[in-house]
Amino acid sequence: MTGILLRNIRPLGGPSVDLAIRDGRIEAMAEGLSADGLTVEEGDGAICVPGLVEAHTHLDKTVMGMGWYANAVGTDLRAMIDNERAERRRLGLDVGRQAMRHALALVGNGTTHVRTHVDVDTENGLDGLRDVLSLRGVLDIQIVAFPQSGLMIRPGTAELLDQAMAMGADLVGGLDPCAVDRDPKGHLDTVFALADRHGAGVDIHLHEPGEMGAFSLELICERTRALGMAGKITVSHGFCLGMPDARRTEALIDGLAALDIAVMTTGAPSREVPSVPRLRARGIRMGAGCDGVLDTWNPWNRPDMLDRARIVAQKNNMRSDADLAAVLDLCSSGGARAIGIEGHGLTEGAPADLALLPGETLAAAVAQGGPVLMTLKGGVVAARRGKALMEAP
Amino acid sequence: MTGILLRNIRPLGGPSVDLAIRDGRIEAMAEGLSADGLTVEEGDGAICVPGLVEAHTHLDKTVMGMGWYANAVGTDLRAMIDNERAERRRLGLDVGRQAMRHALALVGNGTTHVRTHVDVDTENGLDGLRDVLSLRGVLDIQIVAFPQSGLMIRPGTAELLDQAMAMGADLVGGLDPCAVDRDPKGHLDTVFALADRHGAGVDIHLHEPGEMGAFSLELICERTRALGMAGKITVSHGFCLGMPDARRTEALIDGLAALDIAVMTTGAPSREVPSVPRLRARGIRMGAGCDGVLDTWNPWNRPDMLDRARIVAQKNNMRSDADLAAVLDLCSSGGARAIGIEGHGLTEGAPADLALLPGETLAAAVAQGGPVLMTLKGGVVAARRGKALMEAP
Repeated sequence: MTGILLRNIRPLGGPSVDLAIRDGRIEAMAEGLSADGLTVEEGDGAICVPGLVEAHTHLDKTVMGMGWYANAVGTDLRAMIDNERAERRRLGLDVGRQAMRHALALVGNGTTHVRTHVDVDTENGLDGLRDVLSLRGVLDIQIVAFPQSGLMIRPGTAELLDQAMAMGADLVGGLDPCAVDRDPKGHLDTVFALADRHGAGVDIHLHEPGEMGAFSLELICERTRALGMAGKITVSHGFCLGMPDARRTEALIDGLAALDIAVMTTGAPSREVPSVPRLRARGIRMGAGCDGVLDTWNPWNRPDMLDRARIVAQKNNMRSDADLAAVLDLCSSGGARAIGIEGHGLTEGAPADLALLPGETLAAAVAQGGPVLMTLKGGVVAARRGKALMEAP
Repeated sequence: MTGILLRNIRPLGGPSVDLAIRDGRIEAMAEGLSADGLTVEEGDGAICVPGLVEAHTHLDKTVMGMGWYANAVGTDLRAMIDNERAERRRLGLDVGRQAMRHALALVGNGTTHVRTHVDVDTENGLDGLRDVLSLRGVLDIQIVAFPQSGLMIRPGTAELLDQAMAMGADLVGGLDPCAVDRDPKGHLDTVFALADRHGAGVDIHLHEPGEMGAFSLELICERTRALGMAGKITVSHGFCLGMPDARRTEALIDGLAALDIAVMTTGAPSREVPSVPRLRARGIRMGAGCDGVLDTWNPWNRPDMLDRARIVAQKNNMRSDADLAAVLDLCSSGGARAIGIEGHGLTEGAPADLALLPGETLAAAVAQGGPVLMTLKGGVVAARRGKALMEAP
């Protein structure tokens, strides 16, 4: 395997250098590197950033390319869950095809790593999981076996999650132990026991607001401590962390920090959300995600981490150039740390997972968004000008 | 003056028709209209919507095309105000040129009507106003003479506002009577007296949150009633209307409804905001705006009302197809009513101010955003594929 010489690129918007890639890794970054058998790609002064990291999505849900999905279901969580199961059948949603479309759109937009939740329930069983598992060659995909329709309220789901982990899912998922499953102790005992048995991590959807969510979060912390699972747990959304009482949330943040629990945010505009600057300042590992894209839930999300950076930043009132650099980190190297990927960044020896962005400065590139000029995954050009080179089905 | 036959367009996503434009107005909408001396434009099944209405922006602030503005000022309102005045000088911001760039970008993105605030202060005087007034041929522009740097705290500003109205500004502006001007009675008495003297309306920036904003809003209502100015007053932002206590905000909304006070929203993701569905259900005239675009305040806003529709909808958790139609109305016909423009819509006899959007359904067109295929202003093609036909300076 030879490699690539990216000529005239600006790491994080700094001075122009050449970047040599060999055997899938960054070999050197300096001015005037020799091509030495490498394929030269002209960067033309583009800004080079670590590949973007989609830390919270649902590859198994999108209806991209299937015609417009007319949404009439409203915004009640349980109604939306039931609607989705029914519509999956009615639309004949082919998870393998749809997940590939979604994944390739992410690649086109500069993404090199994805953590996706995949529905596991007593109606659809493990079919969706099987389909998403088959995508692993396309980009780095971590899979959370996700009891979207509930766990304690749907007997048989725990057994399916157990099988999902045996099949190769990476993490055990969970969902609103109080609000959806109506049995926080049962739900969390089950989720943590499964994770413990499989030596895996946990990533729990926690939409519960205010004190209900705080209660669930305390139960999560208790189990993390009791089972010695510090560093292996993730809370997604964590809306309770955005409640206005700063003393109350400080206690919750203390718990997260003590147990190295990561937090994923979508910057949900209509909800209270965890403060990105506040949690990052406390050293809490945070990532960002676009959530489900063009699905039966919501028409607004796009498979585009620069678009998500904008949404998260606006929600958090981040607007200075320093803020923009921080939100880019959240969506790249910071997000990688949050999902447990080490060594993701612009350093010699690191995997050559990169994105080239247009723009005058790093902040300009983040603010202006795509199209991303080039995505490199493991040292291979995977996308140009916003389009993955692999054809979508 | 002849006209245009738009062949095969779908009004609001409905069945395909032809749309005949003569003398700047919609003459007929029906299947198989004869061209009869009209210039034929093929719509190819595009969705036709009333021209988009930018109901709250600042044409005099953008640095579009001037290189990246590195923002280091933080988020304190007074600091941002002072920073902007200093940076205007340092950058040599040419308001005429910049406002034209901003306006043409809006036209490219389907906008046919704009209400802009223009800074009037003792440092910059009336120069910005003069520059923006000269743009009125390009598109319909309403101008609010805006005391951005304060009114009571900067003696001489009231006199400048008076001159601004004499020069042709349409409305008297105001800004946070408590939080910025520290004298709510003095501020509002001055603003309303000026408006009363010039027979003009008022559009007040009200960022004040919670009870402070509610207090200012009550003072606005009192003056609107006392001076018989119902239907002529606008509150921009109105963050206090988003405070959580629904009984408290119901009383405020009652006041707005009784006095036909309009509300402009940007759907500010980081703030509490007035609920679009709730206020519209009460019959309150609402419009939406992108606010300042790429200026010393904020790098995120774009001169694009479809982008703003998305931001407002996400903030308000509007996601069904019916919601998407409502948010389009907010950004077109509803916004026109909010800024006092009658007869803006797809009806025979209405001015031919239109936008053609790509998309399968109306909801899809709104969710997917631009580029807008064509903008027509007064029956003339003003933009194609996202670009105004008039060259930007």
